[in-house]
Amino acid sequence: MSKTNPGNFFEDFTVGQVIRHATPRTVTEGDRAVYGSLYPTRFAVPSSAVFAASVGLDPHPVEELVAFHIAFGKTVPDVSLNAVANLGYAECRFHQPVVPGDTLSTTSEVIGLKQNSNGKSGVVYVRSTATNQRGEVALDWARWVMVHKRDAAAPAPETVVPELAPTVAAADLVIPAGLDFSDYDFAAAGEPHRFGDYEVGEKIDHVDGVTLTESEHQQATRLWQNTAKVHFNVEARPDGNRLIYGGHVISMARALSFNGLANAQLVAAINAGAHTAPAFAGDTVYAWSEVLDKAETSAPGVGALRLRLVATKGRDESMTLRGDDGKYAAGVLLDLDYWVLVPR
Amino acid sequence: MSKTNPGNFFEDFTVGQVIRHATPRTVTEGDRAVYGSLYPTRFAVPSSAVFAASVGLDPHPVEELVAFHIAFGKTVPDVSLNAVANLGYAECRFHQPVVPGDTLSTTSEVIGLKQNSNGKSGVVYVRSTATNQRGEVALDWARWVMVHKRDAAAPAPETVVPELAPTVAAADLVIPAGLDFSDYDFAAAGEPHRFGDYEVGEKIDHVDGVTLTESEHQQATRLWQNTAKVHFNVEARPDGNRLIYGGHVISMARALSFNGLANAQLVAAINAGAHTAPAFAGDTVYAWSEVLDKAETSAPGVGALRLRLVATKGRDESMTLRGDDGKYAAGVLLDLDYWVLVPR
Amino acid sequence: MSKTNPGNFFEDFTVGQVIRHATPRTVTEGDRAVYGSLYPTRFAVPSSAVFAASVGLDPHPVEELVAFHIAFGKTVPDVSLNAVANLGYAECRFHQPVVPGDTLSTTSEVIGLKQNSNGKSGVVYVRSTATNQRGEVALDWARWVMVHKRDAAAPAPETVVPELAPTVAAADLVIPAGLDFSDYDFAAAGEPHRFGDYEVGEKIDHVDGVTLTESEHQQATRLWQNTAKVHFNVEARPDGNRLIYGGHVISMARALSFNGLANAQLVAAINAGAHTAPAFAGDTVYAWSEVLDKAETSAPGVGALRLRLVATKGRDESMTLRGDDGKYAAGVLLDLDYWVLVPR
Repeated sequence: MSKTNPGNFFEDFTVGQVIRHATPRTVTEGDRAVYGSLYPTRFAVPSSAVFAASVGLDPHPVEELVAFHIAFGKTVPDVSLNAVANLGYAECRFHQPVVPGDTLSTTSEVIGLKQNSNGKSGVVYVRSTATNQRGEVALDWARWVMVHKRDAAAPAPETVVPELAPTVAAADLVIPAGLDFSDYDFAAAGEPHRFGDYEVGEKIDHVDGVTLTESEHQQATRLWQNTAKVHFNVEARPDGNRLIYGGHVISMARALSFNGLANAQLVAAINAGAHTAPAFAGDTVYAWSEVLDKAETSAPGVGALRLRLVATKGRDESMTLRGDDGKYAAGVLLDLDYWVLVPR
Repeated sequence: MSKTNPGNFFEDFTVGQVIRHATPRTVTEGDRAVYGSLYPTRFAVPSSAVFAASVGLDPHPVEELVAFHIAFGKTVPDVSLNAVANLGYAECRFHQPVVPGDTLSTTSEVIGLKQNSNGKSGVVYVRSTATNQRGEVALDWARWVMVHKRDAAAPAPETVVPELAPTVAAADLVIPAGLDFSDYDFAAAGEPHRFGDYEVGEKIDHVDGVTLTESEHQQATRLWQNTAKVHFNVEARPDGNRLIYGGHVISMARALSFNGLANAQLVAAINAGAHTAPAFAGDTVYAWSEVLDKAETSAPGVGALRLRLVATKGRDESMTLRGDDGKYAAGVLLDLDYWVLVPR
Repeated sequence: MSKTNPGNFFEDFTVGQVIRHATPRTVTEGDRAVYGSLYPTRFAVPSSAVFAASVGLDPHPVEELVAFHIAFGKTVPDVSLNAVANLGYAECRFHQPVVPGDTLSTTSEVIGLKQNSNGKSGVVYVRSTATNQRGEVALDWARWVMVHKRDAAAPAPETVVPELAPTVAAADLVIPAGLDFSDYDFAAAGEPHRFGDYEVGEKIDHVDGVTLTESEHQQATRLWQNTAKVHFNVEARPDGNRLIYGGHVISMARALSFNGLANAQLVAAINAGAHTAPAFAGDTVYAWSEVLDKAETSAPGVGALRLRLVATKGRDESMTLRGDDGKYAAGVLLDLDYWVLVPR
């Protein structure tokens, strides 16, 4: 019998099944540096241990997306090795800052299954939880993917579609213990805009663009131990292109959003996310944001903004999400709905 | 009103103005590793904590250019986002070693302004100072850049051209506290050549060449949080090329100079620097050096060499800086005048 | 006289000569992160400090190949700068885990010389030893390279060909102090296969492939301070290609072998290695393994597998090492014979 991992097919999943993913991964200061070489990130909290300590975060956290990518990467060999498509995310919350020295492990529970009418594939819903070396939850999220069946003749499971919140309620956001923006240093952070300066419905063109390269997206994706073949192997797709990991586009867009959202220091939750078109090396990625909601929090000086972060191939100064037909506009790569914490 | 940073234009600067730059940045061991993956550096002090401690430097410093690039990168969004050209550096001194854990912040003072005769741009002179988390100066330097005017009709400011020293005087070099080359291990450092072996006027062909790639220069430039668009975006220049950050060429040439200058362990000052031609991915960079001056120092066993470091596109075994017309020879990319500390 | 390093030629070596190589190098957590961005490695011991401690390894070791590449890189400027070909390795043993903070230095002794019949080159045999900051041996190995003569008329030295073991005997493997696989967590490690599940003669197709890029192999090779020109300079070879450092292929194949050998946590020895064809950017590398031998060890729960690790350009599902003519099959890049430690 083969010793290599064929991945799970649709009929290998059952509702209630718990999968403990390999391999635990220790976060280091090296990850911060490599991340900083791959994305133009400048948010003051992850950039400066002194700034982070001044707002109550000591030891010095890494970006939430570092933790997200590591935790997510663990699930790939078991959940999405035979995926046709990554359909969505929901209910992703960051429960505490991740700091160098933390070791993350991920477990997933299958919370839903729905075979497609063609009988060749189905949708698998999982809730994944990443814990640290103390057994505390670092982050959790739900995700659904379309997965091939090994055998089209295998019987369909009972359909279970979980109820997932369209957005994390502001009251459910976890504010890091000790976070205090009362003495926030706006000059050090790079922009004067605070909670009160952002209006629901406001759109922000982040202006800057980055042209993607093969080496950079491969290095990023490997850093997260994400093993999906299509990202690394020109022989894995008929067109000979290496498909760029969707998370690379998320991190690039988040970093680009500094220009206009420099005070969006912490990501508190990801409400929803769609990778609406593939990205390849040579594409030039831009980003724009829309303020979807606002909420106060109980932490001193801390407000929450719910944002839509859109990555586009080529700059779209009109910031158009969808065409008249309701479909995503040409060039839209990513539509991410998330909560950030900003100074009030 | 737009929330994104348009950068400052010539008429936004006034002599005496002080700009506190975002965002503070903590240096880590990760930076040392990424730097070592991007440049072929082998100087024993930054390579080995044991070697560094043996010459009195404990904790283990990173290369001076790591500190320079980080400190310099901070100034870009405020000083040179609308720059036409980076005209020169002067009076750059390294005041103390920077070690992992240090957090650098940069402040600039406008020390001169001179509108160009065409009325469309002007030269801005700034003195920038990078301080660490204890408020101590890590390095400082002067720089002048040509910056666009927003409005050609804006009145010209009074012309103020600062007096800048053509070179840092040997007596003004700051020798790191505790530095002692008395028991210097030449075998470990890689070459036998000491202070007395270098003659003023001597030229050294560093022999080795490196072909530049897009990914590597982008990663380097991002690591320093340098956001200038032309380095990352093929849509930012009419020719569709990504211009390589001049500092990438400085670091590459400095690393290549190991072959012949292995004992030039520490950079004490940068007297002047000119980026004389653009560099692009695919160019193969070589370097040669000329000994411009020599000085003893008060530290045990420590001498100072003033060197000209020249980077060229393609190897020039003749080591020609300028043609008969007095202009830089074809292929010269960088002309850097700096002081290094070597064992006597 | 030139100050740059011309490298040693065949007639510069004498049997018994000891060469202390520059430059000592401190290993950091940054190296682990950069390594993880360059290779798809997921072995639980180097990935997780918690997992490593659970099997008795605390502080957290880096991969043995990180230590190997660093130690090996030191020898290049003195031993193989003028090499025609890297002919082989033998008797490489890892004497203790290398951890962040360790500083490695390498010394080589010339143990054999054999001039080629053409009189233009000869084979140099060296035994190299890398020691840490406590003077303890971290690893050692023998290696032989074909080196140019500077002057074909120079007299041939007496021929001395050292006796080198075809393989490190199982009894001579050094098991890291404290290593204990009694409570090994197979789920965390990623696969259920243990010592008893592997049969001598068994072959494992590791399935996954990675397309190589210029930036990545250059970054890897630089990280090890390996200065051989052919890896970095398109002007160094008539065909204008940058030859990929053989060690890059070793690390890539080792990382790919996770899929089927996830429990091959530690490399204990390298018995032999041959780089059978050059690799270039654009090649897609796959790997397969063959179990050559098995041995129990005195450490609790620890067995040893002797493996052949073969890297190929393009996937060869037939896993053919040699053709009917006895020569390496087309596409074979690497034939590496090594010992790993696995749970029993």
